[in-house]
Formats: sequence, structure tokens, C-alpha cells
Amino acid sequence: MTNSKPIITLLTDFGLRDHFVAAMKGVMLCVNPDLALIDISHLIPPQDILTGAFTLGQVCFCFPLGTIHLAVVDPRVGTARKALAVSAGGHYFVAPDNGILTYVLKAVAECAVHEITADNYFRKPVSATFHGRDIFAPVAAWISRGIPLNQLGPALSDPVRLKLPACRRVGDALIQGEVLAVDQFGNLITNLRPADVPQSFKIIAGKHEITSLRRTFGEGKPGEVFAVPGSTGYLEIVVKDGSAAAVLNLASGASIRVVLL
Amino acid sequence: MTNSKPIITLLTDFGLRDHFVAAMKGVMLCVNPDLALIDISHLIPPQDILTGAFTLGQVCFCFPLGTIHLAVVDPRVGTARKALAVSAGGHYFVAPDNGILTYVLKAVAECAVHEITADNYFRKPVSATFHGRDIFAPVAAWISRGIPLNQLGPALSDPVRLKLPACRRVGDALIQGEVLAVDQFGNLITNLRPADVPQSFKIIAGKHEITSLRRTFGEGKPGEVFAVPGSTGYLEIVVKDGSAAAVLNLASGASIRVVLL
Amino acid sequence: MTNSKPIITLLTDFGLRDHFVAAMKGVMLCVNPDLALIDISHLIPPQDILTGAFTLGQVCFCFPLGTIHLAVVDPRVGTARKALAVSAGGHYFVAPDNGILTYVLKAVAECAVHEITADNYFRKPVSATFHGRDIFAPVAAWISRGIPLNQLGPALSDPVRLKLPACRRVGDALIQGEVLAVDQFGNLITNLRPADVPQSFKIIAGKHEITSLRRTFGEGKPGEVFAVPGSTGYLEIVVKDGSAAAVLNLASGASIRVVLL
Repeated sequence: MTNSKPIITLLTDFGLRDHFVAAMKGVMLCVNPDLALIDISHLIPPQDILTGAFTLGQVCFCFPLGTIHLAVVDPRVGTARKALAVSAGGHYFVAPDNGILTYVLKAVAECAVHEITADNYFRKPVSATFHGRDIFAPVAAWISRGIPLNQLGPALSDPVRLKLPACRRVGDALIQGEVLAVDQFGNLITNLRPADVPQSFKIIAGKHEITSLRRTFGEGKPGEVFAVPGSTGYLEIVVKDGSAAAVLNLASGASIRVVLL
Repeated sequence: MTNSKPIITLLTDFGLRDHFVAAMKGVMLCVNPDLALIDISHLIPPQDILTGAFTLGQVCFCFPLGTIHLAVVDPRVGTARKALAVSAGGHYFVAPDNGILTYVLKAVAECAVHEITADNYFRKPVSATFHGRDIFAPVAAWISRGIPLNQLGPALSDPVRLKLPACRRVGDALIQGEVLAVDQFGNLITNLRPADVPQSFKIIAGKHEITSLRRTFGEGKPGEVFAVPGSTGYLEIVVKDGSAAAVLNLASGASIRVVLL
Repeated sequence: MTNSKPIITLLTDFGLRDHFVAAMKGVMLCVNPDLALIDISHLIPPQDILTGAFTLGQVCFCFPLGTIHLAVVDPRVGTARKALAVSAGGHYFVAPDNGILTYVLKAVAECAVHEITADNYFRKPVSATFHGRDIFAPVAAWISRGIPLNQLGPALSDPVRLKLPACRRVGDALIQGEVLAVDQFGNLITNLRPADVPQSFKIIAGKHEITSLRRTFGEGKPGEVFAVPGSTGYLEIVVKDGSAAAVLNLASGASIRVVLL
């Protein structure tokens, strides 16, 4: 197993229609033809760094140690924003310095963060509008060939971190939370941990009151709204055989309240 | 060629936006880093087991012998529904026991069907809502490393099979059929075999009568509605340079009648 | 690096929902199990050969020498249209002879173009409606195993080329151009090269006049409409933090005028 291929994952907001993702893959294969390239998502909503950060944080550590994660949601491409190469928890990350690594930096206490400045590893000429192809992709591929991060540029002490929505205790009987994300099935992923919610509770989400906590989606009656401890580690609000986002008319960022009974 | 990588295909209703598919891939690569991972589809309509079964049945045997097919459309995840590992026609299948293997079990007379119970092959802790990541993916990867199916759990004699829409002769002059699926181009894939339709016929589909059978889409005049013997082995109703689903206003499950003339 | 796997890219209008793309991959892996299969796009608008040609031309030469590009947008599948195997610039191309290789043939002066006629390399029986699976995929895989193009069929001197929209000087003070493509972000990719536009200019696009040329998307004010020299090599019209296609209400094929001041 020591001879298995280096793995590079890709997460972008480039969509699946255009040539952008394939351009990055082609460039990486030119640097290192022996790569396993795995897509995480290319359907991050355009320029939505917070959703990109959440998605990356949910999945990156499911991959083997040594995996290189290339994450490019980059609305300020070509401006003064920095480019990062990070080592964290035995994984590598290559991304713009705009907060997309927030969940990674939060999860791992000891990270090595470097600013990418060594342009000898870039594809030339560098387009001002497509650093994914010209900077991030080739740098990720060079890391897969063993280039140490300190050859890519100087250490950086203060990478950008997004302010993550926190759940907050209000008085004795209320927890104020938020919808972090809505998944493909319309399940509302909250920022509440199952341990935050006592045995006797009422969740107020939009105009709905939710009082039952079940183990999984398949329980309950069709159309019933309930909470489950989600696979993400967070409490999710779901509708049996339906979309909670549609039924409750809530989206990412919506406020959620838990009343302790 | 004996040293080529094991192939694992993936078919789900997880969509392409979230981290779900990548989580399964990461977990599999942790068990066996030398895998070729090939997506069949992740856009099976949510919880639509019948479409998942049809799509899997159309393509699984196009892959080399020994391929492992991971199929997760699983509305009852975490409930009492069983998990299956199947050997059929020189291929392996890992899936919930909910009918998603119906076309596979129909195509191959001799199958070995096992219930997956050996939780030492699972990812821990097992989430009640994401068996794709915690049970099906690692089990598929362990099969790729040579674990025999009888180590995964006991043989099972009665896996769930969906009732497939059959075409039915009504009297002397009528065959009653159904639209099995609508493809990306709006072609209506019926459950009629070309051999079911005599030389002289009339197909009644919605408000349209179709009397011409052509070899391929590119024949006929723009806008013409006709039938072709499809690449699926079934008769398809198509519109030259257009969508038959839109023009005829028909969807999967719609009734089709063939009048023999 | 000499032992790395052959790379085959795939570009189609087959979409991501159905089994079509996976069928091609399965067939290729049966011919050669040691392939790196890389998707360029499967979301080319149905039967839109021009967009397919543009997308392929943008990305194909980003891949390593020796890469095989399989491009199937094929509205006339099964008719008399020919099938091509082409060697150009150290890359291989397998595609219907319908203009989808127009940008490739334009970019490379010396190409070897062969008509594919050697049906011993086909999957049998050949469906009249799915040459992607039965002809193009297996032929691409055989090329990856070293079959020379002249064994696939005779040389062809006049492959189909699409008439590409040209930008045209009108009088002393006007250049007439066109929108070639709209990308995922709504950026309008024009057929104007940055060198075509003088320092002092006004672009008329729909009802908008654009007078500023910036380096990248992240400059300017939110909502501002401006031009950037795009990563495609063409001038792009963009809206800071927005979609130019939506704001200007323009699509592929729209007329653009540059007034020289």
C-alpha cells in the first residue's frame, strides 16, 4: 500500500458545465501523471465561501492521511488576497486565504500555514482570473511530488477565519441556534449538537414547533417534521419522505430556537 | 492486466452538491487506497428506488468482471431494512435490501445473496442516517480486498424485488405497456421490446399516434415523433431534434398502447 | 513517469442523470482496465456541437501529451455522418465528424485525420443510437493500448469544420464581435482578443456601454459592469459579484460592438 497514488480532492464553485474543473485536472496531471483525483463538489453556490468551508470540513478527514485537498471558491481571485498551503492533521490543503479553511483550522490545533509565493511552481503565464488552473492546481500537484510547504513560501500566522454561527444560551430556558446548511434532501443541518438539547425540549423553526427527536429519517409518519442526530455530528431537522427546507420554508442562515421544558 | 486496480462503481440519490459522495469515496480509499472509483449516477431522483434499479441494470454488466457496484438509494436507512452483498454474473453488488437490485437479480439466474451483519467491517460509530458512508462504502472496499461474501453475513434467500411494469397482451389487437424511464434527451424508454411490435402497428402514447419505426434519432424530419429500437434493448419514443417527454407530455409510469394492425 | 496510465477525457451532452456516461466508461475499462478517466463536461447543451467544440478547445491541450479525448455530441448518430480518429499536437481525439473538433483542427496545423471504419474494434452489436458506447468508447480504449490510427480506417482530408464567429472591422471606428459562450458565473466570453481593443474604447453589449477594462473579477465596485482579459484568451464581460448574462440579458451568439474612441 505504500506505493498507492497520491490523492488530490477538488472542491470549487466552478460548476460542472464549463471546462474549468478539467483544466485544473489536466494541469495537475502534467505535473504528476500518477494522481487519484477525487471530486468533493463543484456545485458550491458561486462565491459562497461559508458553504465551501462547511462542505470541506465535513469530509476532508474521511480521506486517508496524506491526502491533498484543493479548495477554490475565490471571489477575489487576482487581487491582493493571499494563497495558502497548509498542513493540518496529516492532510494538506491548498486554497485562497479567504476563510475557506475555517473549519479545518478550527478542528486541528497545530497547523503549518504557508503563504504560496514561489512562482516557479506556477503555470505560466498566470491569468489574473483563473488561479485555480495557474497557481492552486500546479502547487497541489507539486506537493504530491514531495515539495515541502516551506519551499512554497513563508509561514503565515494569521490566516483568514470566518466567524462561524455559534449557538447561544439565552436566559435559563432558551438556546438560540442557526441553520448551517441545507442538504440535497432538504434536511436542515443546524449548529446544535445533540448534547445541547435536553430530553424535554421544543424546537421553534420558522412557524413550526418540533418536539420529537428520532433516530433516523425512516421513522415517523410521512410528512412528519422531527429532529435527528445527523451524520454531520449536528442536529438536523427533517421531514419524513419530504423536504424540511420546503415544508418549513427555511434556508441556510435561518434562526432556530430551542425552548428547554 | 491481472494487476489492474479493483473497480468500484457508485450509484446514489445523494446529488452532486453536498459532501455525501466524497465521504463514501474517502472511506473506501482508507480501506483500500488502490481503487478505481467510477460514478454511475448520483442524480437518481431522491428515494426513487425504481429509477435507481433501472439505471443500475442498464449499465452494470458493461463493466469488467469483478467490478463491485455500490448502490445506495435508501429511504429507510437506519430502520430494520437489511443490507446486502451479492455476487451475480461475476460482479459484486453492495446495497440496501429494498429492491434496488431487482433488475440484477432478474438478469442473473444464479446469485449468491448475503445479508451484511459483520460489523467489524463497518466504520465506527455507525450513524443511523448515513449507512452509505458507514456500512456500504467500507464493505464494498473490503470486498475489493478479497473478503469473501460469506464472511460478511449469512446467506439470504428472499431479497426484496420490485414489481416491474410488464407489457400485457389485451385481446387480439392490443398490447398494454408503460414508460419505464425518460432520459436526458426526453426520449421515452418503454417496456416494449422491438420484437413485441409487429411490422404493422400504431402506438398510442398520450394524445399521439405513432406509426413509424426508424433506425435512429437522426432520421425523419425535425419535430417528427417516431419509435426507435433503443440502445437499452427497449423501444423508445423520440422526437427528431426535440424532447418526446415535452412534446407528448408524458413521464415515467405513463401508459402506452400498441394497436396491432 | 513512463509507466503512468493512459488518460482518456470525456466530453458529451449526455447529462449526469442517466447511465450513458458510465456505459462508455465500463466499455473502455473492459478494453483497457488501466485507464485514468477524466470528465471534461457532460452538460454540453443537448446537441450543441458549437459549445462542445468551444469547451473541448479550451481545455484539451492542458492535459499531458498522449492524452486521448473522447468527444461525443452527436445529433446524427447512426446516420451517414462519419466517425473520426485524429492525432493533433501530440493528443488524440475520437469523435463524430460533425465539427466538434473545429477548434482543435484550427489550433494545430498538422493533423492526421482518419475515418473510423475497422469494426473489429467496435462493441457488438452496434446500436444505431449509441455510438458513444459501441464505437467511440472502445476505439478510444484501443488507441490507449497502442493501436495506430491507420489501423482504424483510411485517412480523411476534409473533416467537417464549423464556421466560427469572427470579429469583423466595420469602417474606421467599429469592431463587430459576438458572445462565444456564457460560463457558470454568467461571464460573457466574447470572440474579441484583448489586443483587438485599443486603449480608448467603448463596448456596446445589449443596452449597456462598457468603458472600463480591469485585470480581474475582484476589482471594481459590486454591480459594476466591466471587461477583463479572460483566462480563455478572450475578452470577457463581467459584473462584479454578479452575472453579466443576467444583468445584460445576453446569451451565447449575441452581438457585441466595440467603438474605438
